[in-house]
Parts: sequence; structure tokens; C-alpha cells
Amino acid sequence: MLYSLITQTNTQLNMTTTLNYQWAFSLIHYFSLYGVTHAVISPGSRSTPLALACEQHPNINTWIQIDERSAGFFALGLAQQKHQPVILICTSGSALANWFPAVVEANHSYTPLLLLSADRPTELQNCGANQTIDQQFLFGSHVRDFIALKHADNKLLNSPYLQHISRQAFQYAISPKPGAVHINIPFREPLLPSSQNSQTLNKTIQHLSQKIMDKSISIDPNKLLSPPICTSPLQSAVDILNSGHGFIICGLLNQQEQEGFKQAVLLLAATLNCPILIDPLSKQRFRSSYAPFTYNYDHFLRQILTDKALIDPPKWIIRFGQFPVSKALLNYLNSLESPTLLISSYGDSLDPIHKAQQIFHTLPKKFCTDILKYSITSGSQAWLEQWQMLEQASEQCIQQSLKTAPTHIFEGHIIHHLLKNIPDNSIIFSGNSMAIRDFDTFITQDSAKEKQLNFFANRGTSGIDGNISTFLGLLAHQKHYGVALLGDLTFYHDMNGLLIAKSLAASGYNATIIVVNNNGGGIFNYLPQQALNEFDKLWKTEINLDFQHTAQLYGLAYTKIDTKKQLESCLSNVFEQSGIQIIEVIIDQQMSVECHQHIYN
Amino acid sequence: MLYSLITQTNTQLNMTTTLNYQWAFSLIHYFSLYGVTHAVISPGSRSTPLALACEQHPNINTWIQIDERSAGFFALGLAQQKHQPVILICTSGSALANWFPAVVEANHSYTPLLLLSADRPTELQNCGANQTIDQQFLFGSHVRDFIALKHADNKLLNSPYLQHISRQAFQYAISPKPGAVHINIPFREPLLPSSQNSQTLNKTIQHLSQKIMDKSISIDPNKLLSPPICTSPLQSAVDILNSGHGFIICGLLNQQEQEGFKQAVLLLAATLNCPILIDPLSKQRFRSSYAPFTYNYDHFLRQILTDKALIDPPKWIIRFGQFPVSKALLNYLNSLESPTLLISSYGDSLDPIHKAQQIFHTLPKKFCTDILKYSITSGSQAWLEQWQMLEQASEQCIQQSLKTAPTHIFEGHIIHHLLKNIPDNSIIFSGNSMAIRDFDTFITQDSAKEKQLNFFANRGTSGIDGNISTFLGLLAHQKHYGVALLGDLTFYHDMNGLLIAKSLAASGYNATIIVVNNNGGGIFNYLPQQALNEFDKLWKTEINLDFQHTAQLYGLAYTKIDTKKQLESCLSNVFEQSGIQIIEVIIDQQMSVECHQHIYN
Repeated sequence: MLYSLITQTNTQLNMTTTLNYQWAFSLIHYFSLYGVTHAVISPGSRSTPLALACEQHPNINTWIQIDERSAGFFALGLAQQKHQPVILICTSGSALANWFPAVVEANHSYTPLLLLSADRPTELQNCGANQTIDQQFLFGSHVRDFIALKHADNKLLNSPYLQHISRQAFQYAISPKPGAVHINIPFREPLLPSSQNSQTLNKTIQHLSQKIMDKSISIDPNKLLSPPICTSPLQSAVDILNSGHGFIICGLLNQQEQEGFKQAVLLLAATLNCPILIDPLSKQRFRSSYAPFTYNYDHFLRQILTDKALIDPPKWIIRFGQFPVSKALLNYLNSLESPTLLISSYGDSLDPIHKAQQIFHTLPKKFCTDILKYSITSGSQAWLEQWQMLEQASEQCIQQSLKTAPTHIFEGHIIHHLLKNIPDNSIIFSGNSMAIRDFDTFITQDSAKEKQLNFFANRGTSGIDGNISTFLGLLAHQKHYGVALLGDLTFYHDMNGLLIAKSLAASGYNATIIVVNNNGGGIFNYLPQQALNEFDKLWKTEINLDFQHTAQLYGLAYTKIDTKKQLESCLSNVFEQSGIQIIEVIIDQQMSVECHQHIYN
Repeated sequence: MLYSLITQTNTQLNMTTTLNYQWAFSLIHYFSLYGVTHAVISPGSRSTPLALACEQHPNINTWIQIDERSAGFFALGLAQQKHQPVILICTSGSALANWFPAVVEANHSYTPLLLLSADRPTELQNCGANQTIDQQFLFGSHVRDFIALKHADNKLLNSPYLQHISRQAFQYAISPKPGAVHINIPFREPLLPSSQNSQTLNKTIQHLSQKIMDKSISIDPNKLLSPPICTSPLQSAVDILNSGHGFIICGLLNQQEQEGFKQAVLLLAATLNCPILIDPLSKQRFRSSYAPFTYNYDHFLRQILTDKALIDPPKWIIRFGQFPVSKALLNYLNSLESPTLLISSYGDSLDPIHKAQQIFHTLPKKFCTDILKYSITSGSQAWLEQWQMLEQASEQCIQQSLKTAPTHIFEGHIIHHLLKNIPDNSIIFSGNSMAIRDFDTFITQDSAKEKQLNFFANRGTSGIDGNISTFLGLLAHQKHYGVALLGDLTFYHDMNGLLIAKSLAASGYNATIIVVNNNGGGIFNYLPQQALNEFDKLWKTEINLDFQHTAQLYGLAYTKIDTKKQLESCLSNVFEQSGIQIIEVIIDQQMSVECHQHIYN
């Protein structure tokens, strides 16, 4: 043996080893009883008992991702689709620091994660031991809870300790506000007995696992959920709504918030005779030809901001969920004095413009049904018609822009052909920066009417990190087709996430990643930085990468698109192909800026 | 304009803008007065004033790296070579969470960094604003200090506030214990005036910068250093040393610790008649044919561990700096009862085996010269000769293994030909996991005698993350040749770091990155995990990547090596070529394990 172990008797060795494994397997088993079914593992030595326990457990599916940053974002996507906490496992040292970007996103996107970090034992802390850092409270205020697990201990193993810990961790990961919970788990060596032969070792592990499962207790995970409560009185809200016309805004809502919401909000809007502005992340845009639904506000509100006379100011605004993507809507809302009623199901103040008069800590559907029990005056039909006229004019203008645009490809064409050809029930993941803004513009009533699509983006912190992994995590949920649209910088930032793509493809998952390559990210072109001498170096950030090589590295099919014709033909058949493909669409940055400005002027 | 600004008067706009820029430039200027000369910038919008200030400042060199994780490790390498804090700049949100792995490494490798994170202003916190997270104390206990900078303010700008802040940050970054200091810097919009034309804008920026520099004050950075103090009495140490024979161990020492150390420790060893075990990171192994220097202890201590009669136990051990890499040495030290004197210049207890009887909070050189003022009994010459015999036997055995090894390449061959051909005064960076252990074995007296080389590794937390970036940061210091030797998993983890390689090559930096590709990392082959059924999935982690495509993506020259002959011929001329090259050496995992075991048995 190259690395000898510190001298102990064989019995001592086996005791520590057995305990370590029982400890890890029990914890994983309790999580499985609460309904956890997935674990994303980054390989390491110290985490051996945890990784092995997940792999041995019959109800836990394991995914391997070497780069912990990508692993974190993969688990994030998977958890968003599963609506259940996903386990992350890594070894001690800087490994878990790589989870941090995904933890921050989970915090702000209310995504439940169970971070299980292996650690060296207490006696190796603060003494210069290898791969040993202070892992206590590593993620600070960005996790819902931190638990320093004790070392594996025979007495505690036979007590309700691990059951209590797993219950606490699971509960805080989902309620009252989903997010990550960090459990730090120290293991003493030896992690595995070194003296046994392979057959004995594998049998021992299986035997230990079975013994723990046999002692199985029954757990009702539903008992852990605390339902959101309505904290504000409704009468004053009713008085506001009865003061005249207004509009509703739907932002990003999660699965629980969406339940029964569409019907409820349409009923409320019908009573109030008001438009409903639907953010692309509200998941209301697809196959939703309901009269009050307004898609194109990002377009026509730009005009209203320069000519306020075009429409009366509203008397009130109802806003559901997270703040919408549209900057034009932000500016418009900021210019108004109208009172806003904000429905925030975790009670968070999701209000960067500080206009909310009341925040209702309740589920969106419940707010709608509760307020309809009061006497509400119907609003004016003329008001709604004014909005619908603006909506129709913008719809035409946007459609027109696709036809009159020059021969060059711009982002509108990509989204147009994507929506036309993508299979029903697919998932779409939008990158941040320009991609999400383009989706906001080009998911119009017309383009979205025929498809039911599941639309996602990492808008918790709107980072350009980890986007590929989040998309692949979303995809890994079930075998619906998936499309991601990412800018070149966003794609570059998480190319490591592609390591898992080949095995996903081999398991029958099909997807296309479209990279909009304008060589360096276009969003800064719209900001005053573009006038600076330093612009090219500090903000244009030409990266000059040909992603064909990335596709080859990860063994993925690849197509480069230069012309509108290629684009049209490619997107009309790519979704029928199996496997995971990369399409790189070359965009002329200057031309793209002109096309965008053309639409808005 | 696509994104209109919230209505303000032009004067108000310009005032905020001007203040933001003056604020940022003043801070950067103060740092430059303390001697800071480098900033590593990841592009973003909120960080505009900071990035622009660095770019404008005549004494600050800027480096652009889009991936903040790679940027962090690049700055780390640069700071280790410059022996001065390097500035890092990024935008708000999850961006700075990507710095965390490098911050953790900086903490444990005592590397000074100045983390300047841009932030949204206070009024956009905790209200669901885009790209806004709680950045306060983000890095917890892993930074030396956290400073929440106030918003740009005219009154404070004309006060000593920023001078005080920059002094505090610089001071804590270097003293008493080098590490990262985090300054969080909120900026209110607008970040730049949008109304000015390009020429006026650029002139204004230049004018503001000049004005601040003209008001320049004089700062003596040396006044900020608090010298380490000797906290333990020396007489009891002298008594221990006079009790009989012992040995000295030199671990990783930084620049300040190395000053005058070699001469001092050789004098001490001559007095004590004792061997000096030199860790590869001690920087003592190259061109150092001094009799007491012992290189091959990792080899012969394995035998001593199984046959204790081969050598007497020492009566004492003196250990300098961080704990050595060798696991055999760790196990040997653990088996001894001899008292250890630990010299730890930041006073940290770098002692994972808990054997230090006294810890001296002082510089290594000072310890040597101070203790030689006492009356020290000369040890026995026979003791030193015993060690030298073991050393020579191991030297022959290791040399022999290179000749008798089978036709396959193993790691020993790579290091042998590398040391033979690498230009004098080059830097060598070793990856973690197997690479550093192989260097420990194969940097023998014979192989290292002719070259002066500067040897580095990220041993603070021994992560496989960020290794390429750290190497390129080390390289960027001055135009000495650089070679990195990394395993395939380590290379994969930080391929994004290669984005900067092409521009480094264009600026005249020359380097070779050697990837030892055994498809999945070999270290676990030496651990008991290899007997498990789950081994291939959880630990072997075959990644099946052909790094030729990585080289093509980043426009770097690439050679694949399959045979010993190719290896010899390639390493005999690659270092004469200019630019940055990647050499992928294909290693058979099983054969490599056998070669290693052959040496040690």
C-alpha cells in the first residue's frame, strides 16, 4: 500500500468504518422517507460514506458531476422540476466553496437543496491539516439552516438524533421558505476497512444498508409544511380596488403558487375588467389566449413613458410573485403613484421600487378567491379595451419587425423559429442578460398560442454562471424535450456543466442548446459604457471562441448558423433529432443593436 | 435608448456619476500608493466605476477574466509572485460567490488579495431587486477583514475616510497574517452619464483621474507591517536540542519567511549535526547540494515504518512552516514521541498530528540565529551519516526505477525529463492529488542539482479547483518560463482559466501545461475504495475527454504523448518554443499503480 494507515487494531478499524457507513446511510435513508429521490455527487475521498450510501439506497438516483459549481446548479434545476429537495455531496476543503454560486441562486429562487459536505474530524481543525477549512456556517445567511452534525457515534445512532436532524433539515429546506440547508458531516478515518477483500467488503456494505432499511419508520412529509398565512386585512385592499381602474402583474411563480392560479386570476380580472400583464416567467404565456392577458407591455410602455397622455394612470396595481423582467415596466411603475398590492407567498418584500402599500403573505390563488368574497365594483370595459388596442398594435409591430429586418439574423428570428418548431410540452431555459429580455419581447400572443411550454431562467440572482447545468438539471427530471437559449459569455461560464450531457443523451434525454454568439455579450451596447475608450477591453469582452471545439470535447452534435436561411432550415428539423446538440448562431453585434432599436422606435 | 433611466435632472445625473467615479478612483489610487500594481477584473455593469478607475490609473495593470472563479485563482497566483495584494473586481450578485474557492485558498496559503465587489445601493437590498444578494460578510471567517464601504458621498470624499479604509484593508491583507480582505462597494445609478458624447465623456474621466492624482499624498507602506514576534522562551528549546540527536523539517515557506533562511538553517544543522528534510514546497530542493539536505525521506521512511530498528528514534524535531506533503513522513512523525519545536511565522498551529511541544511565533531565520546564541551541544556525526546512507540508497532506487520501468510511461518519467530540460529559473506549478506526490518522490538530489527552479502548488486547501488560473497568475509576474503538471480532473476543473492564455502568449509569456491523463484521476486507486462495486462510478470517474479540443478552443498548441520515446523527444525541445502549449500525456492507470508500488516495495 502506498499510503499506510495509522496503526490501529483491525477491530477498531472496522468499528469506525461500520459506524461511518451506518451514520451516512441512516441520514440518507431518512431523507428518502421524506420523499427525496435524487443526489448529485462530486467525487472525493472524505465523502465516501455519503456517496456510497446514496449509491446503495434503492430509492435514491445518483448523478455524478466532477466540478462542484456545475453540480450545484444541476441540483438546482433538478429540484425546481421535482419540487423536492435534491441532495448535494462533496468532499472537504475548497470543494464546497464551489457550491456557493448555486446556493445563492437557490436562496433567491426559493429552491430546496440539501448540502451534505464531508469534513475532517474536529481534532484536525485549525492545525494546518490538509484539505481542511472552517466549514461551519460556510454559506452564511444564504442557507435556511446550518447543522454541524456530530461524529458518527454508536449511542447516537441508536437514538432519534439522525431522525431529528433529517427532519429539521428537510423542513427548513422546504418551509416556510424553500432554499438550501447545509449539513456539515465530519468523518474519522478509516473511511473504509482496508483489510477486507472486495467480495466481503461489498457484502458488508449491502448488509448494513439492508439492516437500516429494515428498521424503517414511517414518516409523513406533509406534516412538515407550514401553509402561508394571510397577514394583511383584505377590506382596505377592496377599498383600493373599488377606487377605479387598474391592472394585474404576474411575475415568476413556483409550482405551489401556480396551483389553481390561472383560473382564479382570470375570474378576478373578469370582475375588475382589467388587463393582466404576464411576465415570461409567470408561466402564463403559453397556450393562453385569454382576453385580459397582455404580453407586449415591454414594447408599448416605452411609448407611454415618453408620452404619458397615451393612457390614464391606473388607480391601483395588483402584483403576484417576483418582480417582472421588463425594464420598461419597472420604469413605468416607478413613474406612477398608484398603490400596489403585492402578493408574496413567502412574505418577502419583492419590491425594488418600494411602491407596495400592502404585502399579502399568502398563496396567489387564495388571495384571488378570498378577495372575491368581498363586494367588488366592476371596472370600466373601456379601460381594458385601451390596453388591448395597445397590445394589438405592438403585436403587429413586433411581427412586422421579423419580416422587415435585414438579411442578418437577429435574436427575434431565433425565438420566432424556436417557438414555431419546438415540440409541445418542451422546457425552455433562458440565459440571463440579453436572452431573457429577447424572450420577453418575442414570446407574443401569436407566437405562443399553440404551444404548452415550461419556461425557466435563473432569475433569483440573474447570474450568467451555472446556466448550462441548471438547464441540464431541469432536463433530467423527465424526458420532455429541452431547449436552452444562452449568450456566448453565459455558455462559456459553465461549459464544464456539459460533462454530464453525453450520459444524459445516452439515457434518452434530448435537448438543444442554442448559443447566441455575438462575441462578447451585447447588453453593454445599450448602456452608456459604450462611449468609453475602455469599452472594448472592459465591457465588449470579445472572447473569440469557436464553440465547435467545445462540442467536440464533450462529444455533442454541433451546427453553426450564419444565415437566416440556415437558421430556418436548422430549427425546422433539429428538434426531431435525438441526443443533445449545440447550435451556435453567429450574430453581428452592431446589426443586432440596430434591429432592437428599430422595434422600439 | 433601449433602457431609459429614471427621470432625474442632468445635473443630478452628472453629480452621482462624477462622485461614483471619484470615489472608485480615489480608493484605487490609495492602494497604488501602498504599492499595489495589479487588478484582475471580471466584466460587469455595477462595477463600472471600479473597473474604469483601474484602467485609467497609470500604475495599475489590469487583467480581464470573465469567469470570476478563474479570476480569483489568477489573482492568487499573481499575488504570490508579487508579494503584494492583488485587486479583484466584479459586479454584484452571484458573481462574487464564484471567488469563494480562491478566497478559501488565500486564507490557508496566506496570500494577500483585495476583493472589491460592486453592490447595489442599500435601498435595493431585501426587496427582490435584480442581481442583488446580501453581500455583507459573504466570505465569513475566510477573509481577514470585511469592510462595508459607504455610498459615494461628497463630504466623505474630501475627508480622510477612503484613505483610512484603504489603509485598513491593505494592512489586514498583509499583516499580521496575509489573506483576503473584502470591501463591498455600493453604487447608486447612474454609473455613467448617458447624455454626453463619447469625446466629452472620456475627457471628463481623464480629468477627474488627474485631479485626484494631483492631490496625491505620500504613504509609507512599510509602516503598516507588524513584524512577527517570538512568543516562546528559547531556553527550554535549547534544553530539548541538547538532549540528543534529531532532525529538521522545512515545509512551505513564503517569500518573507525564506529571506536569509537557507544560510541560517544550514548553520543550525551544522551545529546540531542533523539532517534537514526538505519538502518540495520549501523551495530548498533546487541547486542545493548541501550535505544535510534530505530529499528522499518519503521513500525510505516507508521502510522505517515497517522496520523501526533501521534507525533510532530522534530525541527532537524542529519543523519550519506548513506541514509537509509526504504521507509517509506524517505517519512516521505520528509514530514518534519526540518533542517537536514548530516555527510558525504567523503563530498558527500548523500541526495536524498535535505533536508540537512549543510553537514559536517568529520568522524561521530569526529562530535559527536566536537559538544559536545559546550554548548548543553538537550532535553525533554518526546519526547524520545514518540518514545520508538511507538517502543515498533511496536515490539509487528511485533512479533505477526510471530505467527498469516497463515501456509504458509513468509519472516518474515525465518529471525526470521535465527537470532535465526545463530552462533555469523557470517556475513549476504542481497540481494537487497525485502530481504533488510524484514531485515529492522524483525531485531527487540528482535531478534537482543543476537547476534553480521556483516551485509552487495550491497547498492551502489542496483543491483541484483553479489550478490552471493560479499557474497563469504565477506566470504573469515576469517572463520566466513556466511549466504546470496537472492531472486530468484538475485540468478539467479549470479549463475556463485558459481564456487568458492566448493574450498572455501574445504578450510574450511562454509556458507548457502538461496534463497527465489517466482518465479519471489515479489517487483513489491507492485507497480502499477501489475494492467497492461502486468504484468505477463514484471514484474512477472516467471523463473521456480529449483535451486536443480544449487546446483548439483556446487557440493553443497541443501535443499528445503516448510513448516514452515521444515523451523524451517532446520534452527535449518543447521549452524552446514560444507561446503557451498543452501537452497531454496518456497514462495507463493500472500500469502507473504498478510502477509506484514497485518503487516502494
